[in-house]
Amino acid sequence: MQIYIHQTHHTIADFDEIFSHLKGLAKEDSFAGNIHIFPELYLTGYPLQDLCLQKDFIDGYLKLCGEINKWWAKQKIKVPTALLIGGLDYKFSDDGLVENIENVVFELSTNKKELTKLYTKCLLPSYDIFDEMKYFRPGKGACVWNFADKSFGLLICEDMWHSDQYEVDPIEMLRERASNEPIHGIINFSASPFHLGKENSRIQRAKEFFDVFGVPFYYVNRVGSEDEIIFDGASFVFHDAKVTTKGMSFRSDTLSADILENAQSPKKDKVPKTKHSWETLFAPRLEIKKNSVEINELTDEDCELTLHALNLGIQDYAKKAHMNKFLVALSGGMDSALVLTLLKLFLKEGQEVEAVYMPGQFSATLSWDISAKLCENLGIPLKTLPIKFFHSSVRNQFRETFEEMTGLADENIQSRLRGAMIYARSNQTGAMVLNTSNKSELAVGYSTLYGDSVGALSVLGDLYKSEVYTLAKYINKKFGEIIPNEVIQRPPSAELREGQEDQQSLPPYSVLDAILEGHLSYRYSIEDLVKMGLPSDDVQKVVRLCNISEYKRYQFCPVIKIKAKSFGFGRRIPICKSF
Amino acid sequence: MQIYIHQTHHTIADFDEIFSHLKGLAKEDSFAGNIHIFPELYLTGYPLQDLCLQKDFIDGYLKLCGEINKWWAKQKIKVPTALLIGGLDYKFSDDGLVENIENVVFELSTNKKELTKLYTKCLLPSYDIFDEMKYFRPGKGACVWNFADKSFGLLICEDMWHSDQYEVDPIEMLRERASNEPIHGIINFSASPFHLGKENSRIQRAKEFFDVFGVPFYYVNRVGSEDEIIFDGASFVFHDAKVTTKGMSFRSDTLSADILENAQSPKKDKVPKTKHSWETLFAPRLEIKKNSVEINELTDEDCELTLHALNLGIQDYAKKAHMNKFLVALSGGMDSALVLTLLKLFLKEGQEVEAVYMPGQFSATLSWDISAKLCENLGIPLKTLPIKFFHSSVRNQFRETFEEMTGLADENIQSRLRGAMIYARSNQTGAMVLNTSNKSELAVGYSTLYGDSVGALSVLGDLYKSEVYTLAKYINKKFGEIIPNEVIQRPPSAELREGQEDQQSLPPYSVLDAILEGHLSYRYSIEDLVKMGLPSDDVQKVVRLCNISEYKRYQFCPVIKIKAKSFGFGRRIPICKSF
Repeated sequence: MQIYIHQTHHTIADFDEIFSHLKGLAKEDSFAGNIHIFPELYLTGYPLQDLCLQKDFIDGYLKLCGEINKWWAKQKIKVPTALLIGGLDYKFSDDGLVENIENVVFELSTNKKELTKLYTKCLLPSYDIFDEMKYFRPGKGACVWNFADKSFGLLICEDMWHSDQYEVDPIEMLRERASNEPIHGIINFSASPFHLGKENSRIQRAKEFFDVFGVPFYYVNRVGSEDEIIFDGASFVFHDAKVTTKGMSFRSDTLSADILENAQSPKKDKVPKTKHSWETLFAPRLEIKKNSVEINELTDEDCELTLHALNLGIQDYAKKAHMNKFLVALSGGMDSALVLTLLKLFLKEGQEVEAVYMPGQFSATLSWDISAKLCENLGIPLKTLPIKFFHSSVRNQFRETFEEMTGLADENIQSRLRGAMIYARSNQTGAMVLNTSNKSELAVGYSTLYGDSVGALSVLGDLYKSEVYTLAKYINKKFGEIIPNEVIQRPPSAELREGQEDQQSLPPYSVLDAILEGHLSYRYSIEDLVKMGLPSDDVQKVVRLCNISEYKRYQFCPVIKIKAKSFGFGRRIPICKSF
Repeated sequence: MQIYIHQTHHTIADFDEIFSHLKGLAKEDSFAGNIHIFPELYLTGYPLQDLCLQKDFIDGYLKLCGEINKWWAKQKIKVPTALLIGGLDYKFSDDGLVENIENVVFELSTNKKELTKLYTKCLLPSYDIFDEMKYFRPGKGACVWNFADKSFGLLICEDMWHSDQYEVDPIEMLRERASNEPIHGIINFSASPFHLGKENSRIQRAKEFFDVFGVPFYYVNRVGSEDEIIFDGASFVFHDAKVTTKGMSFRSDTLSADILENAQSPKKDKVPKTKHSWETLFAPRLEIKKNSVEINELTDEDCELTLHALNLGIQDYAKKAHMNKFLVALSGGMDSALVLTLLKLFLKEGQEVEAVYMPGQFSATLSWDISAKLCENLGIPLKTLPIKFFHSSVRNQFRETFEEMTGLADENIQSRLRGAMIYARSNQTGAMVLNTSNKSELAVGYSTLYGDSVGALSVLGDLYKSEVYTLAKYINKKFGEIIPNEVIQRPPSAELREGQEDQQSLPPYSVLDAILEGHLSYRYSIEDLVKMGLPSDDVQKVVRLCNISEYKRYQFCPVIKIKAKSFGFGRRIPICKSF
């Protein structure tokens, strides 16, 4: 008997797909005689948000459970076989309303006729992107599951990350249970979002379990991209001080792993608590040097993970939105060049991509040259749609109705005309528009609402400008010079007025990004940042810009999350406030 | 000695303003010798979301507390005087990080040298727009506060709404405490969001308390609009089976109320629990008749409350964004006419409003006539900016770059050119653009992203189309025929193609709105709605449109919340899902 780890990749609430997947597994040779484990909320997908309260969803889910039970009753399996399946346990009140919901693991096995609740998740994460206390009722007890002479401790995702933040300690409860009732392994059922560095933390934590329990730690995680959140899979088994088997990152996979011959009793030591407070989780990626503060550069490994995470984010969105065409507006700058390159690198068969260059009055010839060269390198036809004629006719009409269009109005209208045109093309062809803003711009509000901020999905919105360059250089190193060197070397500009350059009104990107990382991730105050050695004027300006541009981010599309702290659902700041 | 109820209206985190307010009160004759009560989180504002974790905020808040303590130490008040002040109690770990936060009531009195924690909120609402479990740690005990021979039970907002959803019962704990230690009254410190019908529920609930405790129920609520949430004030005192005094709705106010001579012991009956489940709170405003299902019409009282709520929403946003100009794009339709009218009805001195009419190729003459007549009625100058010339030059350029622009692309580009032009005007004058979409359109995605969906704030986004008409008629009834009858009578149209009318592709608004109210508020399934008697084809179409248009609402501006269930922060549905 072995444990099969099913690292699955399904669309939220696609009950038909899930049932087919289960039925498919049952036909495989490896099915009978083994234990099969699936991610947290395998039966529904994660995160569900309010979907789990919608009656259409609930009806669909209960129907799926009923069908699984009927199907299981008909199976004729002769050897002990078990499936441990993540799902929801609903309690309804007498009048048929939802009374409470638990996030649980069900057993479906040769011992049981139907899906049978084994364990309820005890720790319900409710920080950052998580909202589980909003929807679920926590469990209060540990579970040791016995099957065919083997025993396993069960944990669901956050349960393995016990900290002072929580009052219930599922790990300690499990340790106590296992002291009386020795176990062969611990299984953690996860739906654990990706961010850079996350995989190492999981493995480190598994080691802490191993050190106390002395049994294999089976970690199963889902795959997929849900709006902004990426689930990376990377399931693993940790035993004897090392990872003994590991699933792929960012795609579905199945692993098999051995089960210990003899059950073990845990040591008397407790598994150390994690420092799971808001702040320690979001420790900034900063290096404080003698005369400067610098943001940690992305390593090659970070870049590689980022490429695959962004690819999954784009492809999953497109798949779920039933789109197989993409549209990118090229400006001749770094961000749009990187988005187009990323897209092309991972384009699937049957998918199409179109690049559009929309020069205005202030666009440099170099912008055209770069766009043309990039598209040639990538083998993507480039379409050119000049906006300067609209721009002047808009100016004329504006003058006639109101007055001369000047300053910011005259700058932003160019960006908005581009936004309107790229969406006209999108409406015409059904292509998905990818947004090209980076995290630095988003943070300080250096984008035009309804202009360059348009798009269905933000690809680079969790990468600072300096990281955009690092990623571009990594791609060129890995794949040859796809992204023209000229775009890496030219100073960034929105080209909305004569001679405009980003650095005229912002600190150098190295300083800007360090301020932002400290302010956004660790929520450092202005005073803290200045004490660390960052220039006071810059810090004040940047934090102020960040505070007053919340209204733009409110209307921004989902940002593919790469870091522990990203814009979007995990960062909620009121628009209207006093500073 | 009396109780002074301070129904305050301050900007979130405006610590200077709050300190000034306190110092101002202390100079008034009514200050010394009385008890002063303030809303929940008076010292910070509510809701704070992640602000309460930002170090700049925390530093500012702790500085305020320090200043209040210093100031209080210098006061020389000879008679017993007390302030009960809502604020946050932070605990930091050894390394200076936030360990936990409590939502508390402080006492500042002639008995205490400084702000002293009295009571921690026990029930932390985490449904709909609320997220308190994300930020705060709950209290676990009741508080009877004794001061100058008087005793009061204290509750913070949600504490008065105990239901099965919660495991701790602060009301029952208070009843037990008060059984041993009779009290003179109960004080509830609230930051309670407005929605239609909310005030009655509060008073009903106060009656339930009175029936058991037999003492006055002092209810103090804040005023203000925070992004989408309106706090209506409407503080009151309930005693002897009636409201004995009541504060104004939607503006700051101060009430004074007597204190009972003799303390009372509560009855042995428990205060009934509320049915506070997700579903019962959001019971739909529907009337199920023999052959039809109809949405409950807004009553005159609802209309009056709605007018004032919308006014507060607009004015507070403008004030906090430091804007004193407004801009409305008139289409000749009902929604924009109502927004402009609402705005003008409550315009303050020094504020300006501009209306812009942007006719396109398919705009009817009637649209111009209506816009002109409305602006004449309101005394607002109307500017006309035709888009048909841009529209044709855009078509020409599109043809040259790609192909003939057709269908949806050709419809939406008109709306997006209008969006770009209204924002050009906004950039030029610094005026705030008000969005004019209604809840029915938003629900089914009948608006153009970056087109008519633009704006800083949505005024009508929580009113169905049928309710928009009701409100318009109410205004005309109350103020004379301001809104031209022609716009009330003409069939709604986006005028983006020849002869387009909304009802060609949607069910009649009465049916559409009933389906939406059932689906959105109560989360009824398609099956439920059909069983109620709504047409099956319409139900399927509308629910489907609602499901697939989530991506548009994701990028929509804040909607002023009028109903128990509105779009925005209180309704979170994944964009990508299987249905």
